[in-house]
Amino acid sequence: MLKFDRQDLIPTIIQDDATGEVLMVAFMNEEALRLTSKTGFTHFFSRSRNAIWRKGEQSGHVQEVRDIFVNCEENSLLIRVVQHGDAACHEGYRSCFYRRLLPDDRYETVADRIFDPEIVYER
Amino acid sequence: MLKFDRQDLIPTIIQDDATGEVLMVAFMNEEALRLTSKTGFTHFFSRSRNAIWRKGEQSGHVQEVRDIFVNCEENSLLIRVVQHGDAACHEGYRSCFYRRLLPDDRYETVADRIFDPEIVYER
Repeated sequence: MLKFDRQDLIPTIIQDDATGEVLMVAFMNEEALRLTSKTGFTHFFSRSRNAIWRKGEQSGHVQEVRDIFVNCEENSLLIRVVQHGDAACHEGYRSCFYRRLLPDDRYETVADRIFDPEIVYER
Repeated sequence: MLKFDRQDLIPTIIQDDATGEVLMVAFMNEEALRLTSKTGFTHFFSRSRNAIWRKGEQSGHVQEVRDIFVNCEENSLLIRVVQHGDAACHEGYRSCFYRRLLPDDRYETVADRIFDPEIVYER
């Protein structure tokens, strides 16, 4: 039985099913997981907006579910997806993990931007 | 600047640098991250034991750090490692995500056990 945390959330890793690239991490509540299973597209719970969102609802960069895995302690999920539109990150990168953490705590950007978030999200 | 949560923790994904396989998820506090950077081997913070542990300290299955990445929102880490001893999971599997979550909420084990935890941890 899945163990949701004190805020009724479970951290979920999204991985590209074709390449193995880790695209993002987000939280699901029970309803987001139910919607993900039912529709075959990822849904998450936003702590800042206190609401469920369907990944890609604004950008069109939806994630088609291929497989859902659960860890040994049943307190996190790993979902393998087909990433539509080539970018998972709202900053316009394929993966949210587009920066390397250097030993002196600086960041080094290691990926190219795929889209301009100013245009896609009409900020 | 990294954003640790209310419990001063940051979720950290561990990925096999050679294969891309997601091995585990665990939490780090600032000290665990500092030790990880300094020693080149992963350290985590255990919420149940309220202490820092060096991954593999009992089993010998240590993780050698290749790269550390930070996500867009600076609230999670992705560490690519060389997994020594072939198993990251304390249950004896290569990855903690050794079970598929089926639509009816049942689990299906999809990996083979590499070691017997009863022996390795002398329970």
